[in-house]
Amino acid sequence: MKDRAPMSDPFASLETFRAALAHAPGPDLNAQAEAEARNAQLTKPPGALGRLEELAIWYAAWRGEAVPRITAPQALVFAGNHGVAARGVSAFPPEVTAQMVANFAAGGAAINQLCQEAGATLRTHALDLDTPTADFTQGPAMNEAECLAALRTGWDAVDPKADLLVTGEMGIGNTTSAAAIAYALYGGAAADWAGRGTGLDDAGVAAKARVIETALDVNPSAKTDALEALRCLGGRELAAMAGAIARARVLRIPVILDGFICTAAAATLHEACPGALDHALAGHVSAEVAHSALLERLQKAPLLDLGMRLGEGSGAALAIQVLKGALACHSGMATFAEAGVADG
Amino acid sequence: MKDRAPMSDPFASLETFRAALAHAPGPDLNAQAEAEARNAQLTKPPGALGRLEELAIWYAAWRGEAVPRITAPQALVFAGNHGVAARGVSAFPPEVTAQMVANFAAGGAAINQLCQEAGATLRTHALDLDTPTADFTQGPAMNEAECLAALRTGWDAVDPKADLLVTGEMGIGNTTSAAAIAYALYGGAAADWAGRGTGLDDAGVAAKARVIETALDVNPSAKTDALEALRCLGGRELAAMAGAIARARVLRIPVILDGFICTAAAATLHEACPGALDHALAGHVSAEVAHSALLERLQKAPLLDLGMRLGEGSGAALAIQVLKGALACHSGMATFAEAGVADG
Repeated sequence: MKDRAPMSDPFASLETFRAALAHAPGPDLNAQAEAEARNAQLTKPPGALGRLEELAIWYAAWRGEAVPRITAPQALVFAGNHGVAARGVSAFPPEVTAQMVANFAAGGAAINQLCQEAGATLRTHALDLDTPTADFTQGPAMNEAECLAALRTGWDAVDPKADLLVTGEMGIGNTTSAAAIAYALYGGAAADWAGRGTGLDDAGVAAKARVIETALDVNPSAKTDALEALRCLGGRELAAMAGAIARARVLRIPVILDGFICTAAAATLHEACPGALDHALAGHVSAEVAHSALLERLQKAPLLDLGMRLGEGSGAALAIQVLKGALACHSGMATFAEAGVADG
Repeated sequence: MKDRAPMSDPFASLETFRAALAHAPGPDLNAQAEAEARNAQLTKPPGALGRLEELAIWYAAWRGEAVPRITAPQALVFAGNHGVAARGVSAFPPEVTAQMVANFAAGGAAINQLCQEAGATLRTHALDLDTPTADFTQGPAMNEAECLAALRTGWDAVDPKADLLVTGEMGIGNTTSAAAIAYALYGGAAADWAGRGTGLDDAGVAAKARVIETALDVNPSAKTDALEALRCLGGRELAAMAGAIARARVLRIPVILDGFICTAAAATLHEACPGALDHALAGHVSAEVAHSALLERLQKAPLLDLGMRLGEGSGAALAIQVLKGALACHSGMATFAEAGVADG
């Protein structure tokens, strides 16, 4: 990194944020080669642990360590409120966002249980819940300063000592925000990106599709610039997730993506800067229909497919266990030589 | 259970074993109803935890407890040697079975790491490794006494205080045994059931298909009686897994099935006695091609699909984490009333 010019403040503008992401270091190829060599010597037939083997090698490369363990996973849940919620795009009232934040604080939500199981620390950040973002059918959801503030909240929330990051969200109306972003980034038909969220019926889904069509008409810059899509169509919690995922990329902390909303936020980084999600894997594919389409665009094969559609980081938190299992095998198993087992 | 006649020794004959299985109690429907009612009150949109919700209710029903936790999972690995290994059906020599048993004892195998991660106790049972079963292309692999002894080893190995069971295996040549059993139980083409095992090439797979065709010609009773299929085509480790799964059924201990070989052993119970696997779920679908076909016959949808094909109980041990996550959510989350969250 010595040969690179000092970075300007990543939060001076969306352009400096993009530049910070573009200058992030890649994986450690020496650690990767060592991890591959170790994997070939472990007491199992070649390839018999399937994706667990790839996962372990990928993780080793990002951590720069051939025989790593996951000991400090961090989960961050960001909450935001959405002006577009007034359009009736959710089965739940906006008050539920703050109520669920209180539930996270009290330890009563799904993400609390799943983090406890995975040994992950959990921090919740409520972003200006009393001031919803603007209704993006009328204009941009955020101005640049608001978007940068949310990105910075996510960026600053990442613990540099974490060795794995999960980002989750809570925000009534935010599947509409995610659908609008996906539609802006990848086109197609609005109806393909609008799903049931927490429980819409067919008429609700059709109305949601019309909302995201309007959103793109009103915010044309979202179609040509991914960070503009995040600013104009995102909520604060989506921008905060993007900021956290970007910081993890800079710090070489591997990330497990959660569901549709998290993935839409992440996709803005991917489209803004190729390689921005090389440190991230898809924890699961949700029941929200557009999620699998979005993962295909990102060429990420999900670890789990359990019909979950809760958000909060819940699918990603469960997937921590798969990655921990992969590393436990990689770093804990005996080699053929150590165990005195005949090698095929 | 009081109204039932006292059971004869389950190990007097294969018929008494079958009878013991047929008399096993079912799930607790009261606990199931209570668990369903609780699930509907948890702080999440209805169905948003997907399969985790079904898993928790299913587990609650089998444990007879509406708000259960998994605190004492047990993994049992059975090892056996196979006369048919002399037919060149494996990429590894038979000595590897005993070498891997030593590796299990020393803590160096994948299953050791995955059990440690899942908080599961692990016991390995090596079944007469110095006396392989007979080559089933020449006659039955086991006589009835040998088969019953292996079933009893598995039955007795189950800890009645366990609240979850995983059964795994090690035995060079045992994918051929499993393929022969699947072919006996479900017909079709021998080639559809013969897979690569630990690393056969195309010629090896074709030879394996011919071996299982011969096995069925030589052991006609295997085609009409599932427990005969287990005796004539199974190895001791397959019979021991069947015995352990049967005991868990009697004790209402839920079971997570592992890969192709474990599932083939379990399938003999299912075909011998309808409902024998109602307490069992498929932990994963392996890369061994016939495994998904076998799971379809059993109508079991796997929890994980990670291309694993190691055996040892490894896929099932990893799947423990999914089930633990399901129970952690079910039993640890707040209800809408407790959390003061608006209910949709």
